[in-house]
Amino acid sequence: MSTAQSATLSVVGIGNAIVDVIGHAEDTFLERHGMVKGTMALVDEERADAIYRLMGPAIESSGGSAANTVAGVASFGAKAGFIGKLRDDLLGTVFRHDITATGTLFPTAPATDGPGTARCLIVVTPDAQRTMNTYLGACANLGPADLDRELIESAQITHLEGYLYDPPLAQEAFRQASEIAHGAGRKVSLSLSDVFCVQRHREAFQRLVDHHVDVLFANELEIFELFQTSRIEAVIDRLRVSTELAAITRSERGSLIVAQNRVIEIAAEAVPRVVDTTGAGDLYAAGFLFGLTSGRSLPACGRLGSLAAAEVIGHVGARPEVALHELAGV
Amino acid sequence: MSTAQSATLSVVGIGNAIVDVIGHAEDTFLERHGMVKGTMALVDEERADAIYRLMGPAIESSGGSAANTVAGVASFGAKAGFIGKLRDDLLGTVFRHDITATGTLFPTAPATDGPGTARCLIVVTPDAQRTMNTYLGACANLGPADLDRELIESAQITHLEGYLYDPPLAQEAFRQASEIAHGAGRKVSLSLSDVFCVQRHREAFQRLVDHHVDVLFANELEIFELFQTSRIEAVIDRLRVSTELAAITRSERGSLIVAQNRVIEIAAEAVPRVVDTTGAGDLYAAGFLFGLTSGRSLPACGRLGSLAAAEVIGHVGARPEVALHELAGV
Repeated sequence: MSTAQSATLSVVGIGNAIVDVIGHAEDTFLERHGMVKGTMALVDEERADAIYRLMGPAIESSGGSAANTVAGVASFGAKAGFIGKLRDDLLGTVFRHDITATGTLFPTAPATDGPGTARCLIVVTPDAQRTMNTYLGACANLGPADLDRELIESAQITHLEGYLYDPPLAQEAFRQASEIAHGAGRKVSLSLSDVFCVQRHREAFQRLVDHHVDVLFANELEIFELFQTSRIEAVIDRLRVSTELAAITRSERGSLIVAQNRVIEIAAEAVPRVVDTTGAGDLYAAGFLFGLTSGRSLPACGRLGSLAAAEVIGHVGARPEVALHELAGV
Repeated sequence: MSTAQSATLSVVGIGNAIVDVIGHAEDTFLERHGMVKGTMALVDEERADAIYRLMGPAIESSGGSAANTVAGVASFGAKAGFIGKLRDDLLGTVFRHDITATGTLFPTAPATDGPGTARCLIVVTPDAQRTMNTYLGACANLGPADLDRELIESAQITHLEGYLYDPPLAQEAFRQASEIAHGAGRKVSLSLSDVFCVQRHREAFQRLVDHHVDVLFANELEIFELFQTSRIEAVIDRLRVSTELAAITRSERGSLIVAQNRVIEIAAEAVPRVVDTTGAGDLYAAGFLFGLTSGRSLPACGRLGSLAAAEVIGHVGARPEVALHELAGV
């Protein structure tokens, strides 16, 4: 019995395979240790260890932007896959357990030597904002050899995170993955990830968005940085010549879906108490991509994105705590 | 300058040093895998690995009953200490980080060989109840040699968890710790931990309560099991001949404080949404012991216990997410 047809996936994510270490602190902690609220900073192992020593009690929870997104897609009940690089250590075991437990396929072999599994030290301030310090560790070894061609070809959408432009080998994997996907007649989506990440790689990202990306996710800060404007109208005009579809998230003001022929405003979902915004953008992308790959209308895609984002900001951690297919009634 | 006086602690906890692995599942998961809801089962490493493979996505968070209690005492702003056995592995590093980050002293040397740091696989069902599977690992090596006499003598109260009766060497450490504390004119508190734990060690626990324990914590199920009765009046009479003070927790019905000359009913603190009951009893004990060691009245001790328990059941994980001294305004 052949299962080739039933193996078709909704989304395959390619990204950094990271375990989050999440603790709480006052704003003064950020100031004292040179952190910029709401952003992600890359740190080496020594600085990561120093920050960990300074941090209060924490919890460990699997993270990684694209990984969070595919875990969300799987939680909506769709079939997803993930490509990312771990080390064969305890954090690697935790990451693999958590993503495969969602039903997501994860064929990437772990590194058996070199740096350990990546970790992201996340400081959540009383306003629920998260400030991230990432030690990339084993992610530095993700390269074209880790791409599973069959997995990518079998997915309706290959979802890439902008953070992939930080580990050097991963940039090439990023380009090749996008070629494989398009070669198989599939779509490519990209999340811009972080405003500093856009600063670091702006020209490369502009080329990607203009030539390789079908669906773009960004928040306002990131998209303004990418196109060097602070006017949303200019962003919309620019997006229409670059991509088929974009979703701009705007925190509690919801999101804007920019299609070729229309702009759709989506309200944010009400959240009784915002606890930790880690994963909000990733889960918005999850809901949106689940909607898109299951043939739903654009407004429905946006609403599923809002719903998933609302779930994840209601608790600590960047992955859903409840089955999103039940929450959404899909 | 001598700091001997200022080194005096409120509470030193002695218990199993455990990292919790917390995931969500339906009730059918418990039934299918032979778990009894709301209780703790001891499992060997093989069974722990098997349960982990079966569990959905999880988060890792430092736990251990007495460790949760002293972390809570420290969060109220008092000085606490902890004695418990880790292995020098990654989970051990996580546990040590989290407890020392609260300001708690933790002098116990980690084991450099033998089984790994203990873990507790916790399944949270939709009713927020937790069902626990503990692999004791390195805790099996906690013994009298790990007791820090000076630390125990410097604490107003030495707090012991009933679970210490499971690892064989720890029973002797338990007895010696209680002798050291009483020898220094200090008090000893005990949490009965779990109804099955009381079943396993009922006679030993009865002797302890009658002869060595000054402050007893238990829920109704545990105290009924200890005294082989289901009448609360019989429990109260029995407690008065055994201990100076006892607090019986009754979930959403609050708690009963049983003193020699009176019984005080304490209401439960309102909780907008009960998310995960892991740590409820441990944090009740934290609030109560903080109150007691800071010279507060018994009703105030009970209210601080209710407050701390309410905080911890509002989120996933058994340790406070916010500073309890701020929450309580103390």
